[in-house]
Amino acid sequence: MSSLGGLDTPAAVVDARRMQANIERMQERMDALGVKFRPHVKTSKCLPVVQAQLAAGARGITVSTLKEAAQFFAAGITDILYAVSMAPGKLAQVATLRRQGCDLKIITDSVAGAQAIVDYGKEHGETFEAWIEIDVDGHRSGIPPEGESLLAVGRVLHEGGMRLGGVMAHAGSSYDVDTPEALRRVAEQERAGTVRAAERLRQAGLPCPAVSVGSTPTALSAEHLRGVTEVRAGVYVFFDLVMHNVGVCAVDDIALSVLTTVIGHQEDKGWAIVDAGWMAMSRDRGTQKQKHDFGYGLVCTEDGRPLEGYVLSGANQEHGILSRAEGVDPGIAARFPVGTRLRILPNHACATGAQFPDYHALQADGTVADWPRFYGW
Amino acid sequence: MSSLGGLDTPAAVVDARRMQANIERMQERMDALGVKFRPHVKTSKCLPVVQAQLAAGARGITVSTLKEAAQFFAAGITDILYAVSMAPGKLAQVATLRRQGCDLKIITDSVAGAQAIVDYGKEHGETFEAWIEIDVDGHRSGIPPEGESLLAVGRVLHEGGMRLGGVMAHAGSSYDVDTPEALRRVAEQERAGTVRAAERLRQAGLPCPAVSVGSTPTALSAEHLRGVTEVRAGVYVFFDLVMHNVGVCAVDDIALSVLTTVIGHQEDKGWAIVDAGWMAMSRDRGTQKQKHDFGYGLVCTEDGRPLEGYVLSGANQEHGILSRAEGVDPGIAARFPVGTRLRILPNHACATGAQFPDYHALQADGTVADWPRFYGW
Repeated sequence: MSSLGGLDTPAAVVDARRMQANIERMQERMDALGVKFRPHVKTSKCLPVVQAQLAAGARGITVSTLKEAAQFFAAGITDILYAVSMAPGKLAQVATLRRQGCDLKIITDSVAGAQAIVDYGKEHGETFEAWIEIDVDGHRSGIPPEGESLLAVGRVLHEGGMRLGGVMAHAGSSYDVDTPEALRRVAEQERAGTVRAAERLRQAGLPCPAVSVGSTPTALSAEHLRGVTEVRAGVYVFFDLVMHNVGVCAVDDIALSVLTTVIGHQEDKGWAIVDAGWMAMSRDRGTQKQKHDFGYGLVCTEDGRPLEGYVLSGANQEHGILSRAEGVDPGIAARFPVGTRLRILPNHACATGAQFPDYHALQADGTVADWPRFYGW
Repeated sequence: MSSLGGLDTPAAVVDARRMQANIERMQERMDALGVKFRPHVKTSKCLPVVQAQLAAGARGITVSTLKEAAQFFAAGITDILYAVSMAPGKLAQVATLRRQGCDLKIITDSVAGAQAIVDYGKEHGETFEAWIEIDVDGHRSGIPPEGESLLAVGRVLHEGGMRLGGVMAHAGSSYDVDTPEALRRVAEQERAGTVRAAERLRQAGLPCPAVSVGSTPTALSAEHLRGVTEVRAGVYVFFDLVMHNVGVCAVDDIALSVLTTVIGHQEDKGWAIVDAGWMAMSRDRGTQKQKHDFGYGLVCTEDGRPLEGYVLSGANQEHGILSRAEGVDPGIAARFPVGTRLRILPNHACATGAQFPDYHALQADGTVADWPRFYGW
């Protein structure tokens, strides 16, 4: 246990109280909507965070890499959905985890992918559980709800002896809207499309127990989730400036920040130079096309109070340029002398967190706990 | 030792022959220009890479974090320049390394920064060696060559009993140009400004033994380096698509790529989905404003042959969207079936490398060696 003042910079700080409030807000919503909640742990890749999500009522987790699956299975979590279309070359890793007792489910969205799962499963005596990915908004992967190949993929899996476990969708387009009406519309589109796909499979005599949807914006905006069995969401645990612009959190809900130190100035330009560059913040410029562009992040005091109008307007690898978002502050050097410590709220918590080997979890009593996180594949 | 075919995806692959050729090209140029070469190891953060640079003739290294300094000092390298303005709070770390025998040099560009170095040094009996950062192009930190505060900073350090070791500049604006003429002009501006700052210090009776300049584009473009004692450059060791657009390397010189697998398609859109998203490529979109926008990277076959016109046009955390840069390939699914392995050349090698715990170094005989790299601060 240390304190914020004892940390070297740059450092990733998690406000544990805000995180806990975010977790409880989401879990209460999921409970009220009557669905199981399966958080996406790609945001944190950190056991204490995931343990807090499970303690609040989450059941099972979603992962974006097999490393996440292996790490969290090693920590005792067994109900895991790997929510990226299965690469045939990774089936051996999945089979190994399943044989060790991990209830690891995989996904696919093509006949070729399904056939590869069946072929490997038959050859190696493994009954994989596979879900079919549904494309509800054209933003990435998946089969449209009315897509021709849906039943074919289902049949390949089911008749090939695999366990057809359900359907899943992720309305990534929810990140592109910013009004409650639009968010509700995207959430309903995600729900309705995924439920429709499940109905088509069932009407064709195929099993489809799980109907899984989710993104942080849609999870927080859906009016009802009839026909859905579970929801997935990730970034809500920390929130970030992109989510603030979308309209699903306040700035004061953002639980992740980067602690930094002022190392110099260019007074005539109104710049303070800080030791958090893009290596610390990540190169994510997710707010660039949103209604409020925060550059590489919003500047706060060391104790977390936002300094409205001050952003990281530029970044090199280990240098951040702190300035007013608009206009020049002629008193920048006096306002933020060399050695001043500040905290920067990130555009995208998943990307910023990934730059750090540890989170420093700031507790209500002002102490800081070290929460290791992992990276890589 | 394994082979490329045995690697899980995504993976960072270093073509060791290309890397060696890049190292030799730069070292031969530095030798011809008659300057010491101090490579910037922030690009690789990897001991075998740095050992190859030193074996080719580099003398000393440049680092962007004190973690790099500590790691490479532990490997036996002592002549180290920490090329980010000194945060007062990190002086204790520097003092510790120096007492262990590391000849670690620090930089500053302000009276306040210099005073903090002197104050800590006097209080703790440490004679720091500090260089003054010069701003030759207005892109980031430093004092302009004719800047008023240059002599004041020099006097604070020198009269305060510290070792004033020299001046250093980095012409970051060289990344923004793309003709040989403009590159030569920026290189000469970097050289002339830094040499001028050294002259001013010397004329004022202050010591200035080292005159250090560098960026990959200027190092490869300078016509002469009269008055300069050493050059620093980092990304040349791998090169990348940004450097290709700047005009200082061919696509076939790029030594870093990300090995990936096709996991699905959206045929009507001409998309193949691969398992290298922005977590693997980084969010760096450095070619976006250059003459040729490569999206998140240029697609190559598994054996490294570029597929001109095919790029990663989009990226989510673990999904890359592979498509033609212009137009739609209606035969994308047949061209790149599920399971196809490809390699993606990155926009920015420093950012992409940082996403991986290891490089897989492809040798001339087709074997692959594991080269660990580190991250964090």
